[in-house]
Amino acid sequence: MTHPHIHPVILSGGVGSRLWPMSRALYPKQLLPLAEQEPMLTATVRRTCGPEFAAPILVCNEAHRFIIAEQLRLQGVKGASIILEPIGRNTAPAVAVAALAVLAKDPDGLMLVMPSDHVIGKLEAFHQAIGLAAQAAAGGKLVTFGITPTAPETGYGYIRAGEASAQWPGVHAVERFVEKPDRKTAEGFLADGGYSWNAGIFLFSAKELLQELTALAPEIVTAVQAAWTGSAEDLDFHRLDKQAFAAAPSLSVDVAVMERTQKAAVVPVDMAWNDVGAWPALWEISEKDPHGNVLLGDVMAVDVKGSYVRSERGPLTAVVGLDDVVVVATDDAILVTSKDRAQGVKAVVEALEAQGRHEHLSHTTVYRPWGSYRTVDLGDRYQVKQIMVHPGHTLSLQYHFHRAEHWIVVEGTARVTCGEKVFLLQENESTYISAGTIHRLENPGCVPLRLIEVQSGSYLGEDDIVRLEDTYGRC
Amino acid sequence: MTHPHIHPVILSGGVGSRLWPMSRALYPKQLLPLAEQEPMLTATVRRTCGPEFAAPILVCNEAHRFIIAEQLRLQGVKGASIILEPIGRNTAPAVAVAALAVLAKDPDGLMLVMPSDHVIGKLEAFHQAIGLAAQAAAGGKLVTFGITPTAPETGYGYIRAGEASAQWPGVHAVERFVEKPDRKTAEGFLADGGYSWNAGIFLFSAKELLQELTALAPEIVTAVQAAWTGSAEDLDFHRLDKQAFAAAPSLSVDVAVMERTQKAAVVPVDMAWNDVGAWPALWEISEKDPHGNVLLGDVMAVDVKGSYVRSERGPLTAVVGLDDVVVVATDDAILVTSKDRAQGVKAVVEALEAQGRHEHLSHTTVYRPWGSYRTVDLGDRYQVKQIMVHPGHTLSLQYHFHRAEHWIVVEGTARVTCGEKVFLLQENESTYISAGTIHRLENPGCVPLRLIEVQSGSYLGEDDIVRLEDTYGRC
Repeated sequence: MTHPHIHPVILSGGVGSRLWPMSRALYPKQLLPLAEQEPMLTATVRRTCGPEFAAPILVCNEAHRFIIAEQLRLQGVKGASIILEPIGRNTAPAVAVAALAVLAKDPDGLMLVMPSDHVIGKLEAFHQAIGLAAQAAAGGKLVTFGITPTAPETGYGYIRAGEASAQWPGVHAVERFVEKPDRKTAEGFLADGGYSWNAGIFLFSAKELLQELTALAPEIVTAVQAAWTGSAEDLDFHRLDKQAFAAAPSLSVDVAVMERTQKAAVVPVDMAWNDVGAWPALWEISEKDPHGNVLLGDVMAVDVKGSYVRSERGPLTAVVGLDDVVVVATDDAILVTSKDRAQGVKAVVEALEAQGRHEHLSHTTVYRPWGSYRTVDLGDRYQVKQIMVHPGHTLSLQYHFHRAEHWIVVEGTARVTCGEKVFLLQENESTYISAGTIHRLENPGCVPLRLIEVQSGSYLGEDDIVRLEDTYGRC
Repeated sequence: MTHPHIHPVILSGGVGSRLWPMSRALYPKQLLPLAEQEPMLTATVRRTCGPEFAAPILVCNEAHRFIIAEQLRLQGVKGASIILEPIGRNTAPAVAVAALAVLAKDPDGLMLVMPSDHVIGKLEAFHQAIGLAAQAAAGGKLVTFGITPTAPETGYGYIRAGEASAQWPGVHAVERFVEKPDRKTAEGFLADGGYSWNAGIFLFSAKELLQELTALAPEIVTAVQAAWTGSAEDLDFHRLDKQAFAAAPSLSVDVAVMERTQKAAVVPVDMAWNDVGAWPALWEISEKDPHGNVLLGDVMAVDVKGSYVRSERGPLTAVVGLDDVVVVATDDAILVTSKDRAQGVKAVVEALEAQGRHEHLSHTTVYRPWGSYRTVDLGDRYQVKQIMVHPGHTLSLQYHFHRAEHWIVVEGTARVTCGEKVFLLQENESTYISAGTIHRLENPGCVPLRLIEVQSGSYLGEDDIVRLEDTYGRC
């Protein structure tokens, strides 16, 4: 059987705060290789390669745009549309805007909506379910995928499947959606066999979705259409109109449509799905040593059982005489918790935010469209940064009021503009940019450029910068 | 009553491995402000200031000499003798060599032997006990201080007091020394009331000690006399002859003398003593918050009770939903353990040693007689160091075969020798030292000099250094 083209729509709006300190608002969970060798977002993209799929549409936080573009480039993903949310409005507006994007190029197109931060262990089962769901979606159904439960989870919503469709094998009517249950109810669901977990993965036609949304939550469609019409093309990105998008009610797809439409259907599927919601989930899905430990990076465990200990770019981490703990270290933050109380990490992230700190926002390495930098030493009147510039990339033409900069190239070649002069700087060569001097840094070469910058001055904040020209639209 | 002068003898031979990661072999426990605001060693020195005490004698590991000298200087301690052990031989040889040092200037002198890494909460009680013990020591007794037990500890040896002395109030004969007991025996000792903890603190005359040692362990005296006679004065240090000292049997004062002499006496004392043997002891003696936690440095505790969490120069450390744990973070190593299994940290230190790592040996900040340095970034062909030079100090005249160095002054003023040239470098000025060029760095000023050094080259090991001249005898 054939069906219209399927457009993968990947939602990348979350910040993954329960996976702090590795996940940070500006470089969250889905962009990290937490569960596998590659980031979850590109792993999600690569689950939908093949002739039946169109190029993916990503709906993401504006702050993540350069990282996502770079990750797609590294994975060789071509033709992706990246829609930038100027503000988070939950999943229904994000899906609606993706539907408009699909409609614009493929009026009959189906869309497969997937969160960017899940793991699916059995890809073949997923593809088989997609095949079943696509028939029903082409026939006007709004299909959700129901995950066969393996434990009495109290952290997920459930779907009770109804009558099997006569027309579309493997597809059921939805009898009802159920909110997160208590433990006893969840045990009953597991025993019953007719319930599945609601994973937030959907397949429907763009047209149908918009019709239902227009009927059930018209304010979303109005707001999103205005935001889409007012969107600007910015490099490879669609930047939605902020004011218009902000007017959309913040609702999930489930609440706005799925729980209310007469067209809901469910395809139950057993595909080793995991939403990697918190650290214990990562312990769950990782390979364990004979003591039941998952040990990653520079860690030592003495007399430890059933634990998750991870320090890939953090300090040496030694755990002694503890069971069932989670220890995750990065170079500027450490989390120590127990597997059964790890949800409490959210309180840490909230406290950091309330205190105006930065450890919930960004890592020590800060990513820019041209590369990255990391502060390696900081004093009252000086700061030392290690700066990496991608081959062929260029920082803005800029100057600072309050700081002078010494640059020492330690890898690759730099082209430096300093006042009127333009010159090359090789490994082990240095230069000096006095405060107030207009300057620019480029990597004209084909290997990464790495340099050490020593800043000196009375004020060293990132906001002491005047950009005169910028390749990435940041002037 | 009067008595001969008391010479404080402070033994600083240990490496405090159960207090890793803060304690490291090259900068151990006693040199750190772990329990109080100041390092335990200088706190120990300052317990014996007053007219009845002579200047202290320190017996220490050669590797710690510059740090100890600097700490004494900072605390304003004058006239201390520092005897350097070329190799550790337990306490009896260390005490014997201190006795020779006392005899050389004061034939009737008493010596008060104290480990450098204990805490004494009730100083007045200690001084009172010293006063009682000094009378007996002047009369020929070898006095040990017995700590009134407050719990059935199984980690200490015990002393059973015998008959009270008629001649010296507060002084008892020693009935017997008891090895570390099991829990039940320790409970019996506590109930009995006649037992005290053996704290390794002694008071005796130097002459008497040497006489008893000559009778009971003559090989120690022979070896130590040769080591002392062969010792060299090196700046402010007595450096013992290594070969001679190595011949001394490695025995404790207790085993070599106290347990065998007829002249042993004990002064029981209740002085809030703690040997700070491991992390739980520090929790024990520290002030706690209402949840029974000790939280030091950049730490957060959510839903945590009875725990010790410390990160003074390490990353932000968040503990969530755990009780009775110990978490100690430094900038290059983290320990996570439980209060009742914290002894296991020794296994970590042993493993690090077996693996040829450095985290048990040194901190990221490395101390030199002229100041200190810390590696802040390290790549394949470059290294960035922050270097601090004390006012008036000078590094050696040196050159390197394999690395060039860029220096940027970020605080203070440097006098730089580079080849034939000598010049001053101020804040925000830089210079370049090519490989092979003879150079020297000095701080001619009266505030600390801080500079950033960027090394560039194919080999960056500390051993690529040729010293032509050195103020600290390191050529």
